[in-house]
Amino acid sequence: MKPVYVFLANGFEDIEALAVVDILRRGKVDVKTVSISDKKSVESSHGVTVMADMLFGEAQTDDAAMLVLPGGMPGAANLNSHEGLRKALEKQNAEGRLIGAICAAPLVLGGLGILRGKKATCYPGFEQYLEGADCTGESVTVCDNIVTGNGPAAVFPFAYSILASLTDDDTANSVADGMQFFKMLDEQA
Amino acid sequence: MKPVYVFLANGFEDIEALAVVDILRRGKVDVKTVSISDKKSVESSHGVTVMADMLFGEAQTDDAAMLVLPGGMPGAANLNSHEGLRKALEKQNAEGRLIGAICAAPLVLGGLGILRGKKATCYPGFEQYLEGADCTGESVTVCDNIVTGNGPAAVFPFAYSILASLTDDDTANSVADGMQFFKMLDEQA
Repeated sequence: MKPVYVFLANGFEDIEALAVVDILRRGKVDVKTVSISDKKSVESSHGVTVMADMLFGEAQTDDAAMLVLPGGMPGAANLNSHEGLRKALEKQNAEGRLIGAICAAPLVLGGLGILRGKKATCYPGFEQYLEGADCTGESVTVCDNIVTGNGPAAVFPFAYSILASLTDDDTANSVADGMQFFKMLDEQA
Repeated sequence: MKPVYVFLANGFEDIEALAVVDILRRGKVDVKTVSISDKKSVESSHGVTVMADMLFGEAQTDDAAMLVLPGGMPGAANLNSHEGLRKALEKQNAEGRLIGAICAAPLVLGGLGILRGKKATCYPGFEQYLEGADCTGESVTVCDNIVTGNGPAAVFPFAYSILASLTDDDTANSVADGMQFFKMLDEQA
C-alpha cells in the first residue's frame, strides 16, 4: 500500500494527529508524519514537542494513499498557509484519492473548493469556511473521497473510518475492538 | 494546584499518554511529562518520538497532585522496572494522594500491593497482575485514590474522570463537551 501522510504544523491538535497515526499503524498502514516547517520538531497545541518522520519536501505526495490534516489552532491555519500542501491537496482530489481532515482543518479543503457539493463536517463555528459544502454537523462524515471529523473526541470513529477506507471493515472493527472502543461506547452510552 | 506527572517510558501507548496530557491541560491542570530514562526523548509504542518536559530526577514526586501511568508494551514493563517510580507510587499511595493507570499499567500498582482490596480495571488478560484487586472489567474504575482504565479507547472517560477528581464535575463536563465527546457518544451508540 502507498503511504498515508499526516501533516504536522505548529499548533496541531495532539489527539487528532497522533491517534490517527496510532490507529492506522495498528491496522498495518504505512503512515508517515510530515512537518510542514523546516524542522522535524513540531509543537502541539497543548505544548508537546513531537519529532515528525520527515519534512514536507521528503514526502512523495504525488503518490499517496491519503493525505490527512489534523485540526487545532493555529495548526489548521498554518496548514492552510502552506502552498506546497495546498497544491498537493488539489492534485490528490483531482485524482480522486483519499483526503481526511478533522475539527478546524476542513477549512483548508473548503478554501480550495474541494468540498463544493459534498457533505462534510467540522468543529462547530467553522462551517462558514466550508465553501459550498453541505455541512452535516455529524461527528464523522464520509463523502466520495473525503473523510471529515468534527473534533478531538471524534478521532476514534474518524480514524476507524479512514482505516476501513484504506483496508476493509473487518480490519477497522478488529482494531477498534482491540482498543476497547465498543466496550467504552456500551458503558458510556 | 500541585503538578500532575505523566510518566513516559520507551514503548508508551501514544494515545493513553498524550490524550491525558491534552485533556488535563484543557482543564488548566499543571501537567508535566516525565521521561524515566536518561534522555528527554521517548519513543512511543507506535514509533512516535516525543520530548518529555523533564527527566525523572527533576520531578517533585513528593509533592504531586497525581501520578499517571500510561499503558503500552513494553512501556508498562519499563515503568515497572524503575525503582524510583515504584518508591514514588508507594509514597503517593501511603499519603492517600491520587494515582492513575491505564491498560497494561495497572500491573505496576498490582505488583506493589497498592490495589489490594480495591476495585480496579486493566487491559483484558492483565488481571493476574492486579494482586488482591477486585477486577471490574469496566472501561474506567475509580476506587478511593486510584483511577484505572482498560485500554486506549477508554482514555477520554479515564482522563475526564481524573479531571473531575482534580477539579470538579462541571469542569470535566465542559472540557468533554468542547471536545465533542457527548455528541460522539450519541451518534456512535
